[in-house]
Amino acid sequence: MAERDADTQRRSNEPPAARPTIADVARLAGVSKGLVSFALNDRPGVSADSRERILSAAAELGWSPSVRARSLSSNRAFAIGLVIAREPGIVAADPFFPTFMAGVETELSGSGQTLVLATVTPGRQEADTYRSLALDKRVDGVILTDLRTGDERIALIDELGLAAVTLGRPDTDSPFPAVSIDDEAGVTATVDHLAQLGHRSIAHVAGPSSMLHAARRRRAFERAAGAHGIAPRVVETDFSATEGAAATRHLLGDPDDRPTAIVYSNDPMALAGLAVAQRAGLIVPRDLSITGFDNTDLAEHVYPSLTSVATDVAAWGAIAARVLLATIASEPVDNTDLPPARLVARESTSHSPHHP
Amino acid sequence: MAERDADTQRRSNEPPAARPTIADVARLAGVSKGLVSFALNDRPGVSADSRERILSAAAELGWSPSVRARSLSSNRAFAIGLVIAREPGIVAADPFFPTFMAGVETELSGSGQTLVLATVTPGRQEADTYRSLALDKRVDGVILTDLRTGDERIALIDELGLAAVTLGRPDTDSPFPAVSIDDEAGVTATVDHLAQLGHRSIAHVAGPSSMLHAARRRRAFERAAGAHGIAPRVVETDFSATEGAAATRHLLGDPDDRPTAIVYSNDPMALAGLAVAQRAGLIVPRDLSITGFDNTDLAEHVYPSLTSVATDVAAWGAIAARVLLATIASEPVDNTDLPPARLVARESTSHSPHHP
Repeated sequence: MAERDADTQRRSNEPPAARPTIADVARLAGVSKGLVSFALNDRPGVSADSRERILSAAAELGWSPSVRARSLSSNRAFAIGLVIAREPGIVAADPFFPTFMAGVETELSGSGQTLVLATVTPGRQEADTYRSLALDKRVDGVILTDLRTGDERIALIDELGLAAVTLGRPDTDSPFPAVSIDDEAGVTATVDHLAQLGHRSIAHVAGPSSMLHAARRRRAFERAAGAHGIAPRVVETDFSATEGAAATRHLLGDPDDRPTAIVYSNDPMALAGLAVAQRAGLIVPRDLSITGFDNTDLAEHVYPSLTSVATDVAAWGAIAARVLLATIASEPVDNTDLPPARLVARESTSHSPHHP
Repeated sequence: MAERDADTQRRSNEPPAARPTIADVARLAGVSKGLVSFALNDRPGVSADSRERILSAAAELGWSPSVRARSLSSNRAFAIGLVIAREPGIVAADPFFPTFMAGVETELSGSGQTLVLATVTPGRQEADTYRSLALDKRVDGVILTDLRTGDERIALIDELGLAAVTLGRPDTDSPFPAVSIDDEAGVTATVDHLAQLGHRSIAHVAGPSSMLHAARRRRAFERAAGAHGIAPRVVETDFSATEGAAATRHLLGDPDDRPTAIVYSNDPMALAGLAVAQRAGLIVPRDLSITGFDNTDLAEHVYPSLTSVATDVAAWGAIAARVLLATIASEPVDNTDLPPARLVARESTSHSPHHP
């Protein structure tokens, strides 16, 4: 850390655009540019004496190969890609991606690698975007998010010769390492928490079943509810606050058949659901318990504060980037499991109103 | 639009990695690769007949120059950069950036250009990051956000020979076009709205004064309050929900000297402030009116719904990208003013409790 700081400091004080060239090294070492190039690329035909002189001149000048030059000689891009296939509005409403990208950046910064970002409308342009990233040598590998059932991107990316890492394990064969967080543990802990508080009527507001993580959270909910002898009620949404609010209105519509707790598949939907309940005159958590997922920044800053499931999304981004860079460097990598999601109980959950 | 769809369709159906090469064109046209290269690059020495044959072969095969090849011959990266210098936590908590980036992407998609993203810790690595983007030819230009007072990045980027566009007008000389939204109109409309509702004690929870847009919103608040004969109270924060909550606790601390309305410089702080007020037993808007800024997705989904100032952040991103691409293409560009920010009045503002 201290070393990187010192290095940053040094480079910040250099005059801009003053990166030393091979010509500068040749001048200082008193040899030809060609000989410098041979010596710096470890090619034969350079005398030990010349090599020594060239290497100290290069060190003295702080010469390093530019990414562009390395890219041309190695046929590598020194960049990784993230293609987000969600409607722009849904990307913007969900703090997952900025947090995840911040994590990726903590790993890339200082490595000379960059992040190339593309947002595409689902099902349109998507395959084309991966193809361009590969054919134009924009990136050496990609991080695959929002895995789908039978995800066709995996075979495509493999054919394109890109490296990749998947967030979570796909449900199809995959040649790529997976970096996973066990969501299910968090959902199970949530249902257990509510059951312990006496809730017997618990609903789940799920994300789209075409997204593997949404489907997994839903299955975990159904399994955990079943384990407590609770008949699971589920409403599927697109993960947006708007559909989260609509699902809540639907669930609260019949006062005689109202759940006493709602488990939402993300925080923005839970916050929208909280408002729908309050607007309907219910007091949370006295009349209705509410839980979210992802423990976003606002969860602790609303009233009542939101019980949510915490996953370390920034760490997920950092480790996914690290695994991808290792894959690109042809280092052996395994699937990685991060610490499982855990419940953060706050004010929005309490005893069931029917609790004895 | 229809044309782009058709093109996407066609390319999606191509077998992957099957981009035709100059060798393919040469084979089909029955000429040498060198001649194809000359013809396709509009260089002299190709007979009209050969040129005709080569161009139809290229058209038939759907040949297009790869970005990499164009990049090498033109010395251009066909990418633009966005360097975000905020703490990762604050980036994640503020929906501005994902919305803005989604807007940028709508403009880039289909253009063959990509977005290179870097998140840096403010004041550290930042100049170094711009330097690397320029020296490694990662990008042809950058979008400069979060302008600061006396922003030193402008001279740096100019020296590095990058094109740029600034979001808002800097307070120093700048060779770059600015794309601006008049925030001040929105702040003035907010204060006017509150004054009309009888509020005489209005506080402002501002962002960091080192950020030009935060400083502008603050000045607009002070000016508008002054115009109504109201003594402005201001608390400065770092734009985070945590500091927004703390500022609210401070403002509400003395029941005898409590503002009847608080104007927040962003929505996450306003939502956190709403919760602080509710937790203190105040009813919003009966006891306290609250307003936000940016009209983020959750504003209409909380209870009471949040009065906020709407700016079209996605359009800002799209137009900034368009202006930057025009600048890179050496087309003449002017400063651009987007429609001014406008007030969206919702349930969180009402008559002052002291209103006759």
